[in-house]
Amino acid sequence: MAKDVVILGSTGSIGTQTLEVLSSLENSGQESFNVLGLGCGTNVELLASQVKKFHPKVVSVKSNKEREILSRKISREVEIGTGREGLDRLASLGQADKVINALVGFVGLEPTLKAIGNADEILLANKESLVVGGSLVDEKLQGCKTSVIPVDSEHNAIFQALQAGEKEEVEELIITASGGPFLSTPLEAIPEAGPEEALDHPNWDMGSRITCDSASMVNKGLEVIEAHWLFGLPYEQIDTVVHPQSVVHSLVQYRDGSMVAELGEPDMKVPIQYALTYPKRLKNDYERTNLVNLARLEFKDLDPERYPAFEIVVQAGKDGGDRPTAVNGADEALIDLFLDKKIKFGDIARGLKQVLKNLNPTENPTLENLKQTDKWARKKVNQLVNEGKLGGR
Amino acid sequence: MAKDVVILGSTGSIGTQTLEVLSSLENSGQESFNVLGLGCGTNVELLASQVKKFHPKVVSVKSNKEREILSRKISREVEIGTGREGLDRLASLGQADKVINALVGFVGLEPTLKAIGNADEILLANKESLVVGGSLVDEKLQGCKTSVIPVDSEHNAIFQALQAGEKEEVEELIITASGGPFLSTPLEAIPEAGPEEALDHPNWDMGSRITCDSASMVNKGLEVIEAHWLFGLPYEQIDTVVHPQSVVHSLVQYRDGSMVAELGEPDMKVPIQYALTYPKRLKNDYERTNLVNLARLEFKDLDPERYPAFEIVVQAGKDGGDRPTAVNGADEALIDLFLDKKIKFGDIARGLKQVLKNLNPTENPTLENLKQTDKWARKKVNQLVNEGKLGGR
Repeated sequence: MAKDVVILGSTGSIGTQTLEVLSSLENSGQESFNVLGLGCGTNVELLASQVKKFHPKVVSVKSNKEREILSRKISREVEIGTGREGLDRLASLGQADKVINALVGFVGLEPTLKAIGNADEILLANKESLVVGGSLVDEKLQGCKTSVIPVDSEHNAIFQALQAGEKEEVEELIITASGGPFLSTPLEAIPEAGPEEALDHPNWDMGSRITCDSASMVNKGLEVIEAHWLFGLPYEQIDTVVHPQSVVHSLVQYRDGSMVAELGEPDMKVPIQYALTYPKRLKNDYERTNLVNLARLEFKDLDPERYPAFEIVVQAGKDGGDRPTAVNGADEALIDLFLDKKIKFGDIARGLKQVLKNLNPTENPTLENLKQTDKWARKKVNQLVNEGKLGGR
Repeated sequence: MAKDVVILGSTGSIGTQTLEVLSSLENSGQESFNVLGLGCGTNVELLASQVKKFHPKVVSVKSNKEREILSRKISREVEIGTGREGLDRLASLGQADKVINALVGFVGLEPTLKAIGNADEILLANKESLVVGGSLVDEKLQGCKTSVIPVDSEHNAIFQALQAGEKEEVEELIITASGGPFLSTPLEAIPEAGPEEALDHPNWDMGSRITCDSASMVNKGLEVIEAHWLFGLPYEQIDTVVHPQSVVHSLVQYRDGSMVAELGEPDMKVPIQYALTYPKRLKNDYERTNLVNLARLEFKDLDPERYPAFEIVVQAGKDGGDRPTAVNGADEALIDLFLDKKIKFGDIARGLKQVLKNLNPTENPTLENLKQTDKWARKKVNQLVNEGKLGGR
């Protein structure tokens, strides 16, 4: 039986790789998929070619402008939605076995909430759904048949390692971090760094926000929050270790002394495929890790001086409420300014701290509260820059 | 409900550690065990104290001599058997939930065969049961409720990693080898080495035969054969990699590109406990691996020049019949001679080769055939030495 899938963010890095994996599994005759829906932002050109190849019934683009361009390129029978409504419609088609949420940022939360109860499985690559809306997602999942499968390589590794035990048997989750491009940079040079340095990630080829976040370890802080909600474990049981080779994707320390890890190449197609076919493992010919070819595997403590943003983000997670939303919104705005060279790398951690300091926190936020906090944080970042309290050379 | 257990080889390294684990689980209130039977060889002193502590109904010792000494030390209500019959009786008590076979050498095969159908689970630390009698054990297990759980750290690690997938999803099992004491010894010095050098194992504290076998990698060859029978996979799907730190206990490469590994301290109590409580993982306070404290993890190809015995053993496994029995019997005899300084380290591989060359192989051996081959191989080794074809300085 073909699996009905919907892909949100189909033209992004995870989205396009998901379609590659899906085609490859179909071509090998091991599985078949029926692509019900595809959603993207502004990359109409690519979406049009995806529509021609995968024949979805419903698609969604950012706004009417993209809708008009797209409608001239594809069959009239395809329903084209726009904006948030378009994504929500895709997430709640109701007949999807799997909704792959590969959206980037806050915008991913609402579709995740919509998919709960409508889809059998949510394949989650949008970490903000849990970082920002963890409590809302968690609440909605209670007593619901929908399950969440992480696509992110670290969480997918933990999800795999958890197949070898039960949640209550976990002593600690250990999330690995590559250390990013600034692992060996002299400490004093990091705050002055610009986008060229921050975007030079040693192991993974990813989008630019996630690469910057990997340099600042904001990413890793967000992953700790994500793991907290995803696996239902307290922060005390979630540790992070720097592992420059990115071969061990993450580990689970069980209470009996055994540690179970998932290892492999830095290739997102592997966790994407596992999430798509779980609990089955189907054959592919993606590159295998040859242990002998690795020079060595190293593990280091995460140095808070080198990565000051990490602790700020994790603390926001621990303190809860709408603080992670403020951090996340602020970080997105800070990265934009950083990529535009309006602020320096060191301003990212400084900006997060200042935004949190200025936040009037809400302890049990509604979706509406979160949206407001997200907007407020972005605005606050720009305000801080305009007022000369951040950036400036 | 208390689990009824029988421990064969209770005074050896694995046996005593099994009793430690069992006591520790009972003391923590997590599990209770009822020790039905204990079997050992000649260490009557230790057995007597085990009897006083664990109150088995039946025990077994090597011969009447040990029986007489033991009978003066323990309650008359304990049934004392001797020799092979004594072990067989323990293995087939019929009411055991778990028979732990921690015997060393060929002598472990028959109790394993007896336990099949009589016990729910065989916790197998006796690798010879499968190395020598793989086909007999496999045949007897068919359509039988008894399952085999490996205690050996490598196979236990693979058993754990296999919880994250299905057998048909396995691409390759990767058994790690420490490389033993001769990992960095100049090649020309190895054949001349004596027991002092060979017994100096860097990571694991084990019995002397297993430590010598770990220096020659005969051990690793036997483990490959064991894995073949245990996990039902062809030799082409079983690889070995030298990993000097012994932190990664072994790995499973799945066909979807994910590699799952079990890691931890070189502490046999961890796999023993997992085997005892499987599928549960109970809490203990054995030492945990701190990844950051490890200098690094390395993996190397197994160098056939350094470890010539490895390939001889694996080839005997591939060729099948009674060849592994000949290799195993010859190896036990060779180790005895080596520990007695009658032969040098290089004579072990040479001896194995000569014994195999002299063997008139039986392709589908019965238990009786195997016993004969085992005896023949030991005799052949001594004959080779006496004839000056092996050893001699």
